Amino acid sequence: MPKVSHRGEIMPASPIRKLVPLANAAKERGTRVYHLNIGQPDIPTPEVGLDALKHIDRKTLEYSPSEGLMSLRRKLCDYYHRFKINVEVDDIIVTTGGSEAVLFAFMATLDPGDEIIVPEPAYANYMAFAISAGAKIVTIPSTIETGFALPPIEEFEKLITTRTKGILICNPNNPTGYLYTRREMDLLRDLVKKHRLFLYSDEVYREFCYTGAPYISAFHLEGIEDQVVLIDSVSKRYSECGIRIGAIITKHKELKRNLIKFCQARLSPPLLGQIVAEASIDAPDNYMLSCYNEYLERRNLLVDGINRIPGCYSPIPMGAFYTVASLPVDDADRFCQWCLKEFSYEGETVFMAPASGFYTNPELGRNQVRLAYVISKSDLARALIVLEKALEAYPGRTI
Amino acid sequence: MPKVSHRGEIMPASPIRKLVPLANAAKERGTRVYHLNIGQPDIPTPEVGLDALKHIDRKTLEYSPSEGLMSLRRKLCDYYHRFKINVEVDDIIVTTGGSEAVLFAFMATLDPGDEIIVPEPAYANYMAFAISAGAKIVTIPSTIETGFALPPIEEFEKLITTRTKGILICNPNNPTGYLYTRREMDLLRDLVKKHRLFLYSDEVYREFCYTGAPYISAFHLEGIEDQVVLIDSVSKRYSECGIRIGAIITKHKELKRNLIKFCQARLSPPLLGQIVAEASIDAPDNYMLSCYNEYLERRNLLVDGINRIPGCYSPIPMGAFYTVASLPVDDADRFCQWCLKEFSYEGETVFMAPASGFYTNPELGRNQVRLAYVISKSDLARALIVLEKALEAYPGRTI
Repeated sequence: MPKVSHRGEIMPASPIRKLVPLANAAKERGTRVYHLNIGQPDIPTPEVGLDALKHIDRKTLEYSPSEGLMSLRRKLCDYYHRFKINVEVDDIIVTTGGSEAVLFAFMATLDPGDEIIVPEPAYANYMAFAISAGAKIVTIPSTIETGFALPPIEEFEKLITTRTKGILICNPNNPTGYLYTRREMDLLRDLVKKHRLFLYSDEVYREFCYTGAPYISAFHLEGIEDQVVLIDSVSKRYSECGIRIGAIITKHKELKRNLIKFCQARLSPPLLGQIVAEASIDAPDNYMLSCYNEYLERRNLLVDGINRIPGCYSPIPMGAFYTVASLPVDDADRFCQWCLKEFSYEGETVFMAPASGFYTNPELGRNQVRLAYVISKSDLARALIVLEKALEAYPGRTI
Repeated sequence: MPKVSHRGEIMPASPIRKLVPLANAAKERGTRVYHLNIGQPDIPTPEVGLDALKHIDRKTLEYSPSEGLMSLRRKLCDYYHRFKINVEVDDIIVTTGGSEAVLFAFMATLDPGDEIIVPEPAYANYMAFAISAGAKIVTIPSTIETGFALPPIEEFEKLITTRTKGILICNPNNPTGYLYTRREMDLLRDLVKKHRLFLYSDEVYREFCYTGAPYISAFHLEGIEDQVVLIDSVSKRYSECGIRIGAIITKHKELKRNLIKFCQARLSPPLLGQIVAEASIDAPDNYMLSCYNEYLERRNLLVDGINRIPGCYSPIPMGAFYTVASLPVDDADRFCQWCLKEFSYEGETVFMAPASGFYTNPELGRNQVRLAYVISKSDLARALIVLEKALEAYPGRTI
């Protein structure tokens, strides 16, 4: 039999995925499972987006332009201007989800052996896309004690080599919910400017910043406009992950020209998703506000609840809809498995994402989990009770 | 400014794309342009597919499973069985168009420096996906004189090295319309068996075989079931290129396991497209038959017409909806440009794809063009007249 590629062999399989069969088995036993593990919002997609679907009057569902429908790119441009992100239509390329935006950003900037530096814990799929591009992700730990703030800039400096092509951040952050401050962003600006690096900035959660602290886009930083590669997606903000519409935004001319070649190779982003995304940008203010308020209330409920459970700690996440919490357990992988496999309280259990999937260093985050607050407040409240009971019963409890 | 990747720099930009601005300029001058250049069918998408869109009653457009909706995979499985392609649901992974199927096939089987052998002329984007994977496409010419039949198998043997991982065919072929015979497919089977290679088989045009000769799928070949990587798409057969739904089908266990990791990294294929594709598989027989008949009539009209123009020659394509024809011109790139830039006949001109975009060897196919018959018969008839007049007027005419 012919051999598969080494690349495919080293692609990480997420530890969350490994737990899915256990969760399914629990459900088959009649256990109710609270999903704190996933970033799939339960919030409805805006009516205007769903309506647009029903009113598609095309006879042939044809290819769209490789760089995306012009009407969508124009709307996105107006949308970014509302956040004082000063880009032109021509700087915006529509992609098949934020996923493809990351893949193409890496493909068009990184050659095999090139490196990018990423603070961890980090979104696990960055690693997968780097492996696809043959590039190397060099991680730099952020810690729960600082609320996952940007690690000292000297730590970045130490890791920069001749192969370093850029710094990647996710802001607000998945998995930690951290929102980078103006000061931190300025430090990053100085760093990428000094070393002539790309600043890849994944800002798909920008709508969800809860603390009144300003959201600083990479495009708000002066003097590095040509170095910013902004990754975006409509998935989270309009609760339409399934339509697979994202964007990559850059002012770097050669990069733009090359990105278009990757886009042309895959012909076009999804037409139907583009139609829904375009309509969704017109979602009324009260839709966005009610999503925001709902997430804010859930965050407060979850984080307060976690911090009330003896031995548990969660920083207060300032954005997105996740938090990384530490639990009084020997090993969060084992604990998450145990919850699904061996535990239930009044017929219920919890499904959490072990933080190990977000760290490359196997020593880090051993007692941490990522919790997503994309289930209702009543379910969250109940999940907290179940989690507390699970921690009381778990044989590997440390405190 | 930070430097882009070498990979992105060497990505081919299609010669068709370069002509698009010329075609747009011609249209702005009021010239009617007949599009013989693209594979975007004008045929309507099946009603059942469009209806499915209107009846989506979901409140949240959520992620689908990374390997695709189970209901779609089941339908695809039944569909393949109609073509005696004996695969199981578990062998089928839904992708974002045939494009992603090719990319993932390459990513999961090829490492940087690995080689695959492809008869040319060939679909230009195979090259782009190979570059993405850091792999090398080695081409072997097929000729217009043999109607673009499979090159002698000894020519393949000569090119096999320790880095050769597979043979790639497109059957029926884009751009030539050639349909591989049972004898040719058996030779390929023996070759890949002997050298333990993958046989990548792009069969997206299987519905369109016009000669009564049987369509031989790579999965019809005995003894290499674990070596076949079938690339598929609903784009062409249901005239729904924009929904971006394809599939990759393999029985190779490790490959399947690794392909799923690439799928998980990009989260999911487009939900809406999957719903339309699933419904489209139920398109009534008379829909498929009327598409088939329409393409058959167009093929006859186009090929007869081309062969009646002095100095022109097209083999009779047995499948797909393209043909590669030779024209009495010095340089087809130049001629195609000239048609758009400097020529019109009664206010009309033709847009053809220079065959140079389908060859890696710049010496090959210099006087050839690819013609797609995805416009109406009356437009095709008119385009033939315009082409004949263009050839009469072209200063670089050779015969």
